[in-house]
This record gives sequence, structure tokens and C-alpha cells, in this order.
Amino acid sequence: MYTVSVRDHFMIAHSFQGEAFGPAQRLHGATYVVDLEFRRSELDTNGMVVDIGLAADVLKTTLAALNYRNLDEETAFKGRNTTTEFLAHEIFTRIVTAIGRGELGAAARGVESIRVTLHESHIASASYTGRIP
Amino acid sequence: MYTVSVRDHFMIAHSFQGEAFGPAQRLHGATYVVDLEFRRSELDTNGMVVDIGLAADVLKTTLAALNYRNLDEETAFKGRNTTTEFLAHEIFTRIVTAIGRGELGAAARGVESIRVTLHESHIASASYTGRIP
Amino acid sequence: MYTVSVRDHFMIAHSFQGEAFGPAQRLHGATYVVDLEFRRSELDTNGMVVDIGLAADVLKTTLAALNYRNLDEETAFKGRNTTTEFLAHEIFTRIVTAIGRGELGAAARGVESIRVTLHESHIASASYTGRIP
Amino acid sequence: MYTVSVRDHFMIAHSFQGEAFGPAQRLHGATYVVDLEFRRSELDTNGMVVDIGLAADVLKTTLAALNYRNLDEETAFKGRNTTTEFLAHEIFTRIVTAIGRGELGAAARGVESIRVTLHESHIASASYTGRIP
Amino acid sequence: MYTVSVRDHFMIAHSFQGEAFGPAQRLHGATYVVDLEFRRSELDTNGMVVDIGLAADVLKTTLAALNYRNLDEETAFKGRNTTTEFLAHEIFTRIVTAIGRGELGAAARGVESIRVTLHESHIASASYTGRIP
Amino acid sequence: MYTVSVRDHFMIAHSFQGEAFGPAQRLHGATYVVDLEFRRSELDTNGMVVDIGLAADVLKTTLAALNYRNLDEETAFKGRNTTTEFLAHEIFTRIVTAIGRGELGAAARGVESIRVTLHESHIASASYTGRIP
Repeated sequence: MYTVSVRDHFMIAHSFQGEAFGPAQRLHGATYVVDLEFRRSELDTNGMVVDIGLAADVLKTTLAALNYRNLDEETAFKGRNTTTEFLAHEIFTRIVTAIGRGELGAAARGVESIRVTLHESHIASASYTGRIP
Repeated sequence: MYTVSVRDHFMIAHSFQGEAFGPAQRLHGATYVVDLEFRRSELDTNGMVVDIGLAADVLKTTLAALNYRNLDEETAFKGRNTTTEFLAHEIFTRIVTAIGRGELGAAARGVESIRVTLHESHIASASYTGRIP
Repeated sequence: MYTVSVRDHFMIAHSFQGEAFGPAQRLHGATYVVDLEFRRSELDTNGMVVDIGLAADVLKTTLAALNYRNLDEETAFKGRNTTTEFLAHEIFTRIVTAIGRGELGAAARGVESIRVTLHESHIASASYTGRIP
Repeated sequence: MYTVSVRDHFMIAHSFQGEAFGPAQRLHGATYVVDLEFRRSELDTNGMVVDIGLAADVLKTTLAALNYRNLDEETAFKGRNTTTEFLAHEIFTRIVTAIGRGELGAAARGVESIRVTLHESHIASASYTGRIP
Repeated sequence: MYTVSVRDHFMIAHSFQGEAFGPAQRLHGATYVVDLEFRRSELDTNGMVVDIGLAADVLKTTLAALNYRNLDEETAFKGRNTTTEFLAHEIFTRIVTAIGRGELGAAARGVESIRVTLHESHIASASYTGRIP
Repeated sequence: MYTVSVRDHFMIAHSFQGEAFGPAQRLHGATYVVDLEFRRSELDTNGMVVDIGLAADVLKTTLAALNYRNLDEETAFKGRNTTTEFLAHEIFTRIVTAIGRGELGAAARGVESIRVTLHESHIASASYTGRIP
């Protein structure tokens, strides 16, 4: 199995609902450093998992739609706790959509699964891994 | 598959038995920076893999029982080489026990597997991954 | 010159005033990973720059007063842009006060200067370095 | 599943063929920081996944055959794009050969699979994971 | 003293002249991860050391002039060993020129000194620190 | 001012004397990841701060004399607390001696000062910086 991974980040405000979150129920924020990993069994004809330049562009565009925002006010997240693991899945879904639209090029359709990891500090991270439908 | 990971560390003395260990047969020591990763297929009702605050507490408590000790004098490790990979498995076992006791909360019973990684320097690490029985 | 450095983090929401800040004028947030470095010319009688346990405690207490908050609503920061460099200076001031109150122990009065560094992502950081008055 | 991982690096020049590579079609170079991970289900009689000293030696020897070279002039890579993912597979193959020759010791024959990860910068990496034939 | 630091990278081929360089006399290459640190005594009226967006842009533009190149063929480096420390100084000079041209904005003229650090691997780096003339 | 820095590590056992050390009064251990930074105003005729290969060798040799040892039994440290900051100074002294013996080559005599940093975990480090006598 081959992988290629690219990194970028975004910075948001949010709050959580539920006693389990303690002081994180207050409005606060986070920097998320994001690793986006593409996986496939065979390389394409260029010897690539995915065009790494396009991969970086798609990640940047995907994160730009979340960056510098208060997630509590985003209708897409209405009534949801935007935990780190929830956001990892959300970004996974958006990247899958971008691949479907061809934004990563035709060769990227050979990608079999994706892992999205969000580092929220030097001591905590979360991820979502799923197959491309 | 979702994951959440927390990090902490502990500092111990120990020595190894067997020629394969070379100078590490002498009494020496190590700092182990530990990543504890929880894995499950679906999030709980709070949108979490595990309560990250409880996860950090359980990791700290588990490592405290090993921290600032000479492992050669721990009866639990009598006659065993406390290699990094051995210790990764040992910590895995203790975390599984803590989950069984409910120390990570009821929702944590949805966790399916755990990965424990010990970084012993900037160039070496070991891990153990196993399913929760 | 000797130094000792400890690391911790805090997570806040805020917004900036001024066109220079572009999209960061919107309410957003950040994780700040903080390195607190103590500097002195000679070690104390224990062979220490500072009691590292107390140093970690004082850093945690200092950051707890900022953690999980919306800095736009803190009266201490009324009318100020809470940039990373501004916050580095603010934390410097609070640590100096804590040393003056004796929270780092009597020996810590030998500390001559302090550097506070805030890492806001994998590609950006800011710091403030100053002498202890 | 147990793992042990060791890290080393090598520095090469190369260029790529194909419009997809943009400016990387020019002769340029890279530092690759390499993580070599060994995986097996059970520890050997010493309590090890692999002799970590031998593992570090074999990685160093394997990378030395590539280090400080222009890969465009290596006959082994004639007509191939030496992308990061391609090189991860190449190093995987060479490590498997070294294990077969016994360079990692008899116990290393218990290793079931290997992951080779190449970090080409602070924001990009690639890997190849495969079973030992 | 306040600082702000931004990070980016570039990838080049080169070779060295002189027996002291051993195998690095052969054509090879490197990824340089670059930290550019700005230093000044007082913040500007926005509470900033420098506009961090402009700083990132200027660093990217400066590195783009070196990126994906064989430094042996650059006339600017004719007869020079492009060691990591030499390149740190070269980038320092180019950033100082950019500040002089106003590319970092008027407020950046308050910057007093700059440190440029190049990380060439996980175990080696070099830097140049100088005052702004 | 130019710098060049190299990294290596060592692993030791030790204990501390004095109530200020709490549980660290017990025999325990540490991995120290060491950054050795050389500083000078002008490059040598090769365009170097120091021969980086020799620098790595001297650091490895210096650390080998401490590696895999119980520092409580080293006569050199009799009656001393081998704190991280103390060890940073000790390694500084030994590197200065090695430079004086010519182990870093003739050109290294142009080095003006040295910084030795020991990282004892992901959250703590200490250093000593001094001029070459």
C-alpha cells in the first residue's frame, strides 16, 4: 500500500454542548494542523499516488471554507458538537467530494482510501479514515 | 474509523539481559513519550471517540505507576526485558483494565481497539496495537 | 548562561481590529503551544535553574486564566489586538508577577530573564524576551 | 501487533519527467527523513520486534547506497520518476532483501510486514507498506 | 524583545568543492525548511512585530527564486560553496532587500534584526542572524 | 552571527538528592536529545562554521562516554545533582576540550561560542551557552 500525505492548518472558534466538555462549553478556539493522507495499491503512470501540488491546493481550498470562522454560526454544523474527530470526518467528506468533481485530476480516482488527521495541540489529535465510495 | 490520541511521558531506569543488547545491558534509563490512540467505528452521542479529559487522566495515572522508577526492581517485570515494545504492550493491558473499570466513562466501552506508541528518542519508537477484549 | 524550558498550551477565541488582519478580523480562534524559558548565569544550590515542577505548575496556572475563553470579552484586553506577540508579552508579565509572589520558590529569584514563545501553528510563532525587573 | 521504528536520512538530486511535475521537472534535490517500521504479532525470545541496533545499521547501509547522489544517473532508476512514493517502495524492497540475507539476525525472520515512510519536508511525506514475502 | 517567525521550504541540487566535504562533493540535493524570525523592541500600532501574512508572502517569493534549481548553475553562487550557513546568509540579505523595497509594509521598517534558520534534516541546521542596516 | 547545529542523544540512569526533587529522588532515568550549536561571526575559507561531519563525530564520542550509564556511579559527578542544566554545562566543557585538542579541525578554532541544549521530554529542556575560552 502506497500513501502520500500533505499538511496545512486552519484556525476557528467554537463551543461545545454537554457537561462532558467542562470548560470547553465556553466559546474558545483552536488551531488544527491537518494531515491529509491518500492511499492506493498501485502508483499511476507518473509514478505518483496523487499529484502532490493538486493535493495541497485541494486541502487549502477545503480548509479555507472553515478558516477564520466561528463554527457555532455555521449552518452546516447546526446542533452538532464540532469535536476534533467530527471535523476530521467532515473534512474527509469534503475531500471525497472534491475528488469526485475531478479537482485532484483523473489519476486521483485510483485513490482507495483517505486518512484525515487533525492535531489540536502538541498532546492531542484525532482522525477519520474511510474508503472512497 | 475514528481515532483520538493523547500524549504524556514517563522516565525510568532499567537494564537488559542478553548479548543482543550490547551496552544496554548496563543500568541506564529512558524518557518515553507515550501516544495513546483510541479507535472506534462510530462516535458516541456527544460526537466523541472518548472523553479526552478522562483519557489524559487515565494515561497520566497509568504512567505514574511506572514513572521515576527502576524497572529492574519492579516485581511485575521480574525476569523480563522491559524493551520499548514490551512496555507498549504492558501499558496497553493496563489501559484496557482501566476501561473495564469504567475509568474512561460508559461511552468509552464503544472503543474497539487501542494503539500505544512509545517514543524513546528522536530516532526510535515502538508500539502495540490490540483489540479491546 | 543556563536555561530551563517547560511547555504547555491554551485554546482561545478572539478577533482582530484593523484592515491589516484581513479575514482574521472575523471571530476565530487558536491553540497556542507555549514554551516558557528561564535564564540565569549560575545554578542554585540544588544545581537547578528553577524547580521544574513548580515552573510547570506556574505555567499551567497562568494559562488556565486564559484557557477556553473568548479574549474579546476579557476586560484586561479591552481595545487591544491580542496578537500572538502581544499575548507572549502578557504571559511574560504574569510570570514575572508570579515569581515576585514567590510561587516559583525562593531560588527562582536568581532568574535573570525569561523568554515566552507561543507557537500558533506548525509554521508560525511569536515570542517576548525580557529581564526580570 | 507490535512495531519498532528507526529513523535516518539521505540527500539526493533528481528531476522528473512529465508536465504534471511542473517546476520539479528541473534538476533539484531533497532531504528524505526515513522512518522504517517493523511489524510482527509476537515478540522474539529477547522481548524484541527486531534488534534495534541492527535495524539502525541496515537502514544506514541501505540509505548510504542512495545518499549524496544524482538519482537521474543511477542505472537502477533509468526511465523512472523517482518520486517520494516510488523511493519508499524501492527502500522497502532493499530492506526485505537485507532481511533475507540475514543482516537483521535470525530473529528478524519473524517480522511480518514493513512500513517505509519518507518525509520530504515539514508538510509532505509518502510511504510504502508491504508484507515480507 | 519581541519576535515573530514564519516557516516555509525549498528543494535544491548542488555540490561542494573541497576535500572537507567528502561524499558531498558529488552532485546531491537538500530540502531546506526555513524559519524566518523578525525582531524588534516595540510593537507597531496594530500590536504586531510584522504583518504575518506579508512575511509569509515575502518568504515564499524569496525561496521561489531558489526552489527547484541546481545551485551549481546559478551565476549568483559562482565559485561559492552553497553550504547551509552560506544560504542562511544569502536569504537574510534578500529579505533585508525586500524590507527596504517596502514589500513587508511601512511598519516593518521598525524591525531591528532578523534570524534565518535552515533545517537540512532532523539532525542538522544552520542560521544567520544580523541587524537590519 | 552564523550558527551550525547537530543533534544526537544518550540514555542514562540517575537519582537526585534534595526534597525539591520529589519522586525524582528515586533512581530513574532519561533520554536526552542533544542539540550542539556552534557560533561564529565569519565563515571559514570553505564557507563553513564548522565541519559538520566532524561536529557530529565529536558529539557522538562525547555522548558515548555518558551513554548507557548510571550517573550516580560516575566519579566525575560525585556529590552533584546531574540535572539537565548541569549536564548541558558538562557537555559544553567536554566539547570545548575536544575543540582545544583539535578534534574539530583547525578551522573550528574560529568558533566563538557554543550552545548545548538537552531535551528531556516533549515538554522540557535545558541548555548552557558559553564562550570558548
